[in-house]
Amino acid sequence: MLTLGAIAEHLGAACRGDSGRLIDGVATLSSAGPSQIAFLSNPAYRAQLAATKAGAVILAPTLADECPVDALLMQNPYLGFAQVASLLDRSPPPATGCHGSAIVHPTAVVEPSAHLGPNCVVEAGAYVGANVAVGAGCVVGPGARVGADSRLWANVTLYHGVRIGERCILHSGVVIGSDGFGFAQDRGQWVKIPQTGTVIVEDEVEIGANTVIDRGALDDTRIGRGVKLDNLIQVAHNVQIGENTAIAGCTAIAGSTRVGRNCTIAGGVGIVGHIEIADRVHVAAMTLVTKSITEAGAVASGTGMLPVAEWKKSVARFRQLDDMARRLRRLEALIHK
Amino acid sequence: MLTLGAIAEHLGAACRGDSGRLIDGVATLSSAGPSQIAFLSNPAYRAQLAATKAGAVILAPTLADECPVDALLMQNPYLGFAQVASLLDRSPPPATGCHGSAIVHPTAVVEPSAHLGPNCVVEAGAYVGANVAVGAGCVVGPGARVGADSRLWANVTLYHGVRIGERCILHSGVVIGSDGFGFAQDRGQWVKIPQTGTVIVEDEVEIGANTVIDRGALDDTRIGRGVKLDNLIQVAHNVQIGENTAIAGCTAIAGSTRVGRNCTIAGGVGIVGHIEIADRVHVAAMTLVTKSITEAGAVASGTGMLPVAEWKKSVARFRQLDDMARRLRRLEALIHK
Amino acid sequence: MLTLGAIAEHLGAACRGDSGRLIDGVATLSSAGPSQIAFLSNPAYRAQLAATKAGAVILAPTLADECPVDALLMQNPYLGFAQVASLLDRSPPPATGCHGSAIVHPTAVVEPSAHLGPNCVVEAGAYVGANVAVGAGCVVGPGARVGADSRLWANVTLYHGVRIGERCILHSGVVIGSDGFGFAQDRGQWVKIPQTGTVIVEDEVEIGANTVIDRGALDDTRIGRGVKLDNLIQVAHNVQIGENTAIAGCTAIAGSTRVGRNCTIAGGVGIVGHIEIADRVHVAAMTLVTKSITEAGAVASGTGMLPVAEWKKSVARFRQLDDMARRLRRLEALIHK
Repeated sequence: MLTLGAIAEHLGAACRGDSGRLIDGVATLSSAGPSQIAFLSNPAYRAQLAATKAGAVILAPTLADECPVDALLMQNPYLGFAQVASLLDRSPPPATGCHGSAIVHPTAVVEPSAHLGPNCVVEAGAYVGANVAVGAGCVVGPGARVGADSRLWANVTLYHGVRIGERCILHSGVVIGSDGFGFAQDRGQWVKIPQTGTVIVEDEVEIGANTVIDRGALDDTRIGRGVKLDNLIQVAHNVQIGENTAIAGCTAIAGSTRVGRNCTIAGGVGIVGHIEIADRVHVAAMTLVTKSITEAGAVASGTGMLPVAEWKKSVARFRQLDDMARRLRRLEALIHK
Repeated sequence: MLTLGAIAEHLGAACRGDSGRLIDGVATLSSAGPSQIAFLSNPAYRAQLAATKAGAVILAPTLADECPVDALLMQNPYLGFAQVASLLDRSPPPATGCHGSAIVHPTAVVEPSAHLGPNCVVEAGAYVGANVAVGAGCVVGPGARVGADSRLWANVTLYHGVRIGERCILHSGVVIGSDGFGFAQDRGQWVKIPQTGTVIVEDEVEIGANTVIDRGALDDTRIGRGVKLDNLIQVAHNVQIGENTAIAGCTAIAGSTRVGRNCTIAGGVGIVGHIEIADRVHVAAMTLVTKSITEAGAVASGTGMLPVAEWKKSVARFRQLDDMARRLRRLEALIHK
Repeated sequence: MLTLGAIAEHLGAACRGDSGRLIDGVATLSSAGPSQIAFLSNPAYRAQLAATKAGAVILAPTLADECPVDALLMQNPYLGFAQVASLLDRSPPPATGCHGSAIVHPTAVVEPSAHLGPNCVVEAGAYVGANVAVGAGCVVGPGARVGADSRLWANVTLYHGVRIGERCILHSGVVIGSDGFGFAQDRGQWVKIPQTGTVIVEDEVEIGANTVIDRGALDDTRIGRGVKLDNLIQVAHNVQIGENTAIAGCTAIAGSTRVGRNCTIAGGVGIVGHIEIADRVHVAAMTLVTKSITEAGAVASGTGMLPVAEWKKSVARFRQLDDMARRLRRLEALIHK
């Protein structure tokens, strides 16, 4: 429990109202009670402000006069929400110590401050750093390395030689270091190409549940510092993702593509292989990125959603588009001759 | 093994033929033998009826005269198939008792009739209800709750505090309760927003292999009673899915979206965040749902499939569509002036 | 370490230069040093040839004169790369013997030459063939069968009765044999259809991380010999995939569809159910295959990527396409009358 004044100081926000008010949690505008703090960031929720029962609200200074309760004023209320939620977070911390059922190879090194959950496996030559939490059922492969203060939730798999930085979070079902999809054709049969690179995940990366990052074929796959990957993402071999890029769920990036820094890539996106995407590019949901993007900006593909009956008509015409364009040109020639 | 008459009674179907015939299994029209029962529901398979070697066929009364063997007549033959297949199902039941290798925290409660498979882990304060089967390698996180008669196949992960209803089925690789994808921007860096809600899965929900459901940021993510989710689906934080909605594989639903009841959502669909979808909406495969849908009906997006050479022409013209539309309008103005 | 001459002989390539040169690894044109061999296959990398520091390069005979270092000449340099990389592969082999923590049901059969990793589970009646490696945390379900020389990486799940051929590779998080998505409607509720078939995976199949293959409803799901599946793929019940077909990540194939032999299906593709795709069909990335394809060739769908501002204009016109087509026809009628 914290006073509103203490929260304001932590956030660098201006406090308007009772700075001694005690706050014990964060909630939404519509559900918060008098001991909770809410926030207003998305304009879609502005209408909920007048009726809020929150003890206080974090919002932009320009909206201060609309706030019926105590307020913390700052330019980026969503950041304020993130910060206060962290202050008041009561998620269970990892257990401490190593569970008796954890299996650690004699040649592995596990720092004394690390936690190993039930049934997790740390294979030969692996390294688990200080304050790392390895969840139940995780497998840290031979020679893999997990940097200090990182957390692997339950049932994460790291293949041999994979390197995870410090302060990373890997959610359940994540697989890092599986073989890239590399085969050569030999008279109708596929010949496997050994994938001899590895995966380097730099510091402060978060990786969502059931996301997969393949190891490189020769060089390494590399995920830059501060990258945030959502769930069920596919990162193919030799991909490089620049610092602080965020990628939403179910997106797939094909082999050897380089994604820039500070990009925001929405969900369900496909990015073809062997291209480069500049820094600060935004890719809209379910776009297929078919070629390199050389400067910051936003791209999209697709037709937009329609009622099926209308959509069928447009699709039928889509197939006729080239014919329509030629007929249009002929008409123009006739009329302008 | 059951008589045809007993099956007819169970299904509420009319029996035409030898009600004493013994049936020991279900098979397709083309593969069934004389001790098996087949069904005809999809008209595409009607041509196989005449040559079937099945002992009996479940089909609509209007097709009775076409059936060369004994018949069970009912309006919904596919439902009949489901019911008789359940009657005759010989899938292995879960083992009974707790495997000696299961690890149960002293503060967890496991009902005596529950089954815990090899190497599964039940963490502090968790609850496993009566007749629940927890498969090998599953992790039931701290304070998580699994209702009576539910089944977790092998290697399912439930995070802390997740609540699973009764008679649910969770397939292998399912992850429930991982952190939602929530970050605030702070001068080019991402600041993590603690995800302090949980996931509520109501009764009779089935969840396919490797599907992920994230926990809520503040409120809870909620999956309504009788919902059926296929494999590799992404359900983001704070999503709500209404009762009896069915969603096919590889679909992704972004944060805070509400999906209505009795919707059918095909595979590979993307649904953006913060929208509402009414009851009884059908979404076609690989549609991107970009805004709220306020009434029952069907929506679609995309161009339809074409041979690559034709497709390239249409795509080139798609980029010129606005120009074409303007030129068409100019021609109309010239001609009609 | 091998001589260039020995490698040439193994590859069936012509050696131009010092056949006694010692080679100890494979690397890219830009990163290889004098004891490594590189290759040139993708024309995009031809510019790197002149400056390579590699000890030798595998390339097509037509490019021999451009190569500044020793060369191995063959028509398919990418195949040569695959072969030499296999020769020199130093990926860690599976451990040998059975880890003491592996749990094997008394009725299961594990060949003495097989390896069982830590905490893996082999259930009743299962069979693990000669030289098979079962990784940590894997679950081989009741009656499942893994053929000789196959490798399951960590945390793979095989359901009851699944059959895996010889020399297969299954990556972490793979789930095989989960229930197909089959339900009948009964007055707004879903009635589960027991999935009583199984999954047959033939020899020399590789399956990428977190890919799911559902068991058949009545008949079996079948993956043909030599098929290569990438990560996060969904294969629904009763699908059949023909020999040597390769499918990239995040593709989904709906129920009862048959895919031919030697097809190449790119990533993010959706294929609807109950259709047939001929042999040697190529499907472009993120295509929705909506109907059967009866002959070899390439198909695609989608609009191509555009900057968002341009894309919005085209999308707005896409909705007007039928109207535009009708107006164009009216103009033609007016002008040609």
